[in-house]
Amino acid sequence: MSIAYYNGSFSTLGGVRIPLTDRSLFFGDGIYDAAIGRNGKIYMENEHIERFYSNIDFMKIPFSLSKENFARLLNEAVLLSGEDCYFLYFQLSRFSETRKHGVYSNDKSNLLITVTPIEEPDPRKALKLITAEDLRYYYCNVKTLNLLPSVIASAKAESVGFDEAVFHRGSAVTECAHSNISIIKEGEIYTHPTSNLILPGTARAKMLEIALDLGAVCHTVPFTLDDLYSADEVLVTSSTKLCQRASTVDGISFTNAHETLGEAICDRFYQDFIKSTEIFT
Amino acid sequence: MSIAYYNGSFSTLGGVRIPLTDRSLFFGDGIYDAAIGRNGKIYMENEHIERFYSNIDFMKIPFSLSKENFARLLNEAVLLSGEDCYFLYFQLSRFSETRKHGVYSNDKSNLLITVTPIEEPDPRKALKLITAEDLRYYYCNVKTLNLLPSVIASAKAESVGFDEAVFHRGSAVTECAHSNISIIKEGEIYTHPTSNLILPGTARAKMLEIALDLGAVCHTVPFTLDDLYSADEVLVTSSTKLCQRASTVDGISFTNAHETLGEAICDRFYQDFIKSTEIFT
Repeated sequence: MSIAYYNGSFSTLGGVRIPLTDRSLFFGDGIYDAAIGRNGKIYMENEHIERFYSNIDFMKIPFSLSKENFARLLNEAVLLSGEDCYFLYFQLSRFSETRKHGVYSNDKSNLLITVTPIEEPDPRKALKLITAEDLRYYYCNVKTLNLLPSVIASAKAESVGFDEAVFHRGSAVTECAHSNISIIKEGEIYTHPTSNLILPGTARAKMLEIALDLGAVCHTVPFTLDDLYSADEVLVTSSTKLCQRASTVDGISFTNAHETLGEAICDRFYQDFIKSTEIFT
Repeated sequence: MSIAYYNGSFSTLGGVRIPLTDRSLFFGDGIYDAAIGRNGKIYMENEHIERFYSNIDFMKIPFSLSKENFARLLNEAVLLSGEDCYFLYFQLSRFSETRKHGVYSNDKSNLLITVTPIEEPDPRKALKLITAEDLRYYYCNVKTLNLLPSVIASAKAESVGFDEAVFHRGSAVTECAHSNISIIKEGEIYTHPTSNLILPGTARAKMLEIALDLGAVCHTVPFTLDDLYSADEVLVTSSTKLCQRASTVDGISFTNAHETLGEAICDRFYQDFIKSTEIFT
């Protein structure tokens, strides 16, 4: 079942109530992370916890729980839910106080955790993508609760039958509304370098690791919309979907042939997920 | 006393609890507006309600309450609080649903209103300003709940003794973290034009109206950091502070002489507030 945790108490999703003074509500003043898992395990647990703590530091949010105890809490949430395959979400907002922009308090931050059932990711799913101007802020490297531009782009894309929106600043492709994007051209991988323009995705990093293992040359350099349209394969990576290929971008088709580098990466990534979340590992 | 309203019920601030599925919490997926008032009246009520509804339209949030009934509800909140001088805040989030970026539901949106006591604005207060790179998104014309860059800039400014942060994109000054900014040079006003880079402030509009009434030439054109540093007077406008002058910007002092255009604008603005919120008008 879906479960939620807020500041010390477990409950159902519907059972949790947030005080209106939680700064996530007025300002989106908080950070989050998310992972998927199976069989009571959290896939790439350490990577997600490390990123969560590095975002806490970046945003200077008070949080006294050690990484070890936090990991224990996340695993407790997962076990309580009892789901086979789940989406684990955790967010920390600065604290609760009467609304004002400046930060005056050093009070306790608010920790929220949810576990909800999901379908296993499908490495063979082919995505239909549409491009959109990247109108986001310059903190895209931090997983904050200020996600409205991604919400708008996702809603627009989905309302016309697309799976995901690909952001570009001018002609440079950055990432998608809720995933990273990479291209394959003549057997080599191109993906935007980590900077304040993209999220340093855990799945992006895993994809690069797998590609390198497979002997592919990888370039972390910006690429253009024209590079995207003329790529051999387009890879979309995220913590929930792992790695999937695009079948179309702005209506331009990709053949998605078998036994290609792209397919091999998607399949290996999925196998890594399955293997890492087996019951007896 | 401070009061709050959420989806049909009035309560104290501490009495309101928000379901965790309210999309303001995960995404900042909502819009807001705010005004001040006295004696049971809301200053520039129509302007704030008009902007609220235009933001609702922009964000395509479902909301069935008519402007007349919404105004009635705001006034009911103000009267219930019984405060002499108050800050009225109202926000509408898209709806409550399990977390996902895309927008699938046409369900009821969530309306939140708070009324909290404040001090009367002081038109003679002199502000200490510090500049900061504008790292915000390109929806600055909409009052959304994605306010983290403003929170960060405000917190940084206040932590070192400044009243407000002035944003600039490159050398062009846009606005402040939670107010608009304008300069006076040789008796003429310069302020950034309305675009997706600044909020179309109700106080900015009122300031321009007063300046024009006083016979000043007004230019809605971008101005630079150098223009700001070499200005005769610097005006900061917001719904809560009305219009105030800066005494310093990045340590550069402004004399803030008496009987100047800037002082006249600040005083007239305050008088307009007092007159519009008198008991027997």
